[in-house]
Amino acid sequence: MGGALRFEINARSRLSNARVGQVTTAHGSFETPAFMAVGTKATVKGIVPPLIAATGTEVMLCNTFHLMLRPGEQTVRTLGGLHRFTGWAGPILTDSGGYQAYSMADRNAIDDDGVTFRSIVDGSRVRLTPERSIEIQNALGADIIMAFDDCPPSIDPTAGAANQTRLRLAAARDSAGRCGYDHAARLRAANERTIRWLERCNRAHARPDDQSLFGIVQGGTDLDARAWCVERVCGVDLPGYAIGGVAVGEDHERIAEVTTFTAPRLPADKPRYLMGVGYERDLLAAVLAGVDMFDCVLPTRNGRNGHAFTRTGVVRLRNAEHTTDPEPIERGCDCPTCDPARHGWGPPEGGWFSRGYIRHLFMAEEMLGPILVSLHNLRLFQRLMFDIRRAVVEDDWPSLGRAWPRAAEGLPASLRS
Amino acid sequence: MGGALRFEINARSRLSNARVGQVTTAHGSFETPAFMAVGTKATVKGIVPPLIAATGTEVMLCNTFHLMLRPGEQTVRTLGGLHRFTGWAGPILTDSGGYQAYSMADRNAIDDDGVTFRSIVDGSRVRLTPERSIEIQNALGADIIMAFDDCPPSIDPTAGAANQTRLRLAAARDSAGRCGYDHAARLRAANERTIRWLERCNRAHARPDDQSLFGIVQGGTDLDARAWCVERVCGVDLPGYAIGGVAVGEDHERIAEVTTFTAPRLPADKPRYLMGVGYERDLLAAVLAGVDMFDCVLPTRNGRNGHAFTRTGVVRLRNAEHTTDPEPIERGCDCPTCDPARHGWGPPEGGWFSRGYIRHLFMAEEMLGPILVSLHNLRLFQRLMFDIRRAVVEDDWPSLGRAWPRAAEGLPASLRS
Repeated sequence: MGGALRFEINARSRLSNARVGQVTTAHGSFETPAFMAVGTKATVKGIVPPLIAATGTEVMLCNTFHLMLRPGEQTVRTLGGLHRFTGWAGPILTDSGGYQAYSMADRNAIDDDGVTFRSIVDGSRVRLTPERSIEIQNALGADIIMAFDDCPPSIDPTAGAANQTRLRLAAARDSAGRCGYDHAARLRAANERTIRWLERCNRAHARPDDQSLFGIVQGGTDLDARAWCVERVCGVDLPGYAIGGVAVGEDHERIAEVTTFTAPRLPADKPRYLMGVGYERDLLAAVLAGVDMFDCVLPTRNGRNGHAFTRTGVVRLRNAEHTTDPEPIERGCDCPTCDPARHGWGPPEGGWFSRGYIRHLFMAEEMLGPILVSLHNLRLFQRLMFDIRRAVVEDDWPSLGRAWPRAAEGLPASLRS
Repeated sequence: MGGALRFEINARSRLSNARVGQVTTAHGSFETPAFMAVGTKATVKGIVPPLIAATGTEVMLCNTFHLMLRPGEQTVRTLGGLHRFTGWAGPILTDSGGYQAYSMADRNAIDDDGVTFRSIVDGSRVRLTPERSIEIQNALGADIIMAFDDCPPSIDPTAGAANQTRLRLAAARDSAGRCGYDHAARLRAANERTIRWLERCNRAHARPDDQSLFGIVQGGTDLDARAWCVERVCGVDLPGYAIGGVAVGEDHERIAEVTTFTAPRLPADKPRYLMGVGYERDLLAAVLAGVDMFDCVLPTRNGRNGHAFTRTGVVRLRNAEHTTDPEPIERGCDCPTCDPARHGWGPPEGGWFSRGYIRHLFMAEEMLGPILVSLHNLRLFQRLMFDIRRAVVEDDWPSLGRAWPRAAEGLPASLRS
């Protein structure tokens, strides 16, 4: 088990649990801590593969649930698997569909055997079980595949003032036939299912020699539940482990609390993956806890809305103040948008795509706007990861914090100076 | 006048009026016959500048009318002009807005002094005159700018069975106050305006040393009207001349007839530009008539709809037959989509984006679908132009016809074998 994946740790922070390393798969290596670009439907939206690579991205994530519905995993398999299908020759990870059972809770029903979805493509009834999820992921052919888990609401959706209509619906559905929603019971049931389903996933996995199955720890924000789940999940010998069910509505502090509690409890010699996280400060806090891998839609999804990340905060490129703004998104950035000459793009005399031009593209609804900001945002996240890796090696966190004021919000006071 | 542009003819066909040459502007040269990529709103939709260049494109066209409305020419000027604005360092041409007075005839009113538009952006009233069009184009800063002309319907919109509701509306509007539409009178009026407006454009042109103004010949499909207009337009000494009002509803034969009549009557030592044309056969027929420059939305607009051009015809990539089709759009094509390795894209072992993958992207409404097909189509048109230029040098048209069956429909029988 796990012959498909090699994980080497090359340096460790003494001031934290952070480490830098390298994960090697059948389709090449990536440096850790790593940020994976999200290519939900087998494409990082609007970005051709060489430009994904130009941002420093080394791993792409694709979504089992979406690809199962369209074009169907057998189509992908017939066309040579995800690498051949997408033209992305580097490492690929697929999620399991478990998260969609949570995020689309208003469209599905969960039971002890699996989840029944109503297709977002054609409304048809779709069944996902541990075995089926692995079968699909075996057909898609990613280098790292994820266990099918039961992701519960991280915080009690019937309590508090949070605007969580979908979660409430999910809770109501989950407790059908009962009088009320019992959050602790829901977490417990999810944990138990997650463990049973992990064992079923592991038995069903047909390609352990070239695809590495990662287990997922659930437990919401309940640290006892997390501890219980860590112990059970790590009882199954796997090439890597993930922390799931985080960043589904909690604030930064709760995310950091759960991650800081859970990550060090995962095996130190295996890659640890924090799923779906997050903002810069969340990434930094998680690295300090010992996390090695991340994915998040923020750089691309927000980029498509004209929100550009910078070291100091978000620039909203649709704002009228940028109409004649000749500045790049961020001075000193080496992305294709801010420094096209570095990437062999014209004009030879240097220059950049100005905020004014990018604003025009958004106002005119031109594809190039989302493309240019997605490239910038992905590169910003990859530069942050690069600098974080250097900070681990040098164990120099104050310098990192000064260079990345926004990310520095994730540094504990003891590491700020 | 015309110091901004140099045109050298390097070879001539003896069997036709075709010639190959080079146009040199302040922003570099391009080989002729040339096909310009259309970047209506200062972007070739979805294509970053280095990929425009990767298709072999050497000139980009932008639209005065659209850019005047948004972001406004003063915004473009403030941000450094179109080259700096777009990041496209090569030659750029802007049209004058005259064509939009025709194509949006249902939204505007024409008089002897100019055209009043209702803005497609905010509904406001916009006035375009010869002086105003040139003022805008001077501010945009393209290397080649076009005279503001009156483009009439090429064929009588009140006759025949053509589905030309907008043209009928335009005709009705044009003849307001009169009892009926007189097509001959409309052509005559358009010609007279076009000449008066050309003289006004030429007087208004404030940057003749770095922007080259081209005159436009109108006259519809009436060859006498064309002859009259050619003589008057060429009476104004300009660095180049264009044939306008073609491919606005006529069939291939009418396009070729008008072009074959008009092109040789334009000065032989100046570049000749056939505006808005066209399909492969139209391009080839026009080159044989002595045309040097083309622009058309076909490769990009049809590409965005999943219509891929090939040497032998159109491939409709949305069709279900391509669901598991492992083939590239066209075997032997050297575009980034069909031969990514040639462009330094992964995977290193070669391969291509399959028709099945591209179909998936269209079905999933992913930007990458329009991008990949636009790249292919632009490259196909540029390869056709490359092969046409070689055919001119070798005066070998049968070989060209065999290699390009679809384009060969534009070869007269005498040149087919």
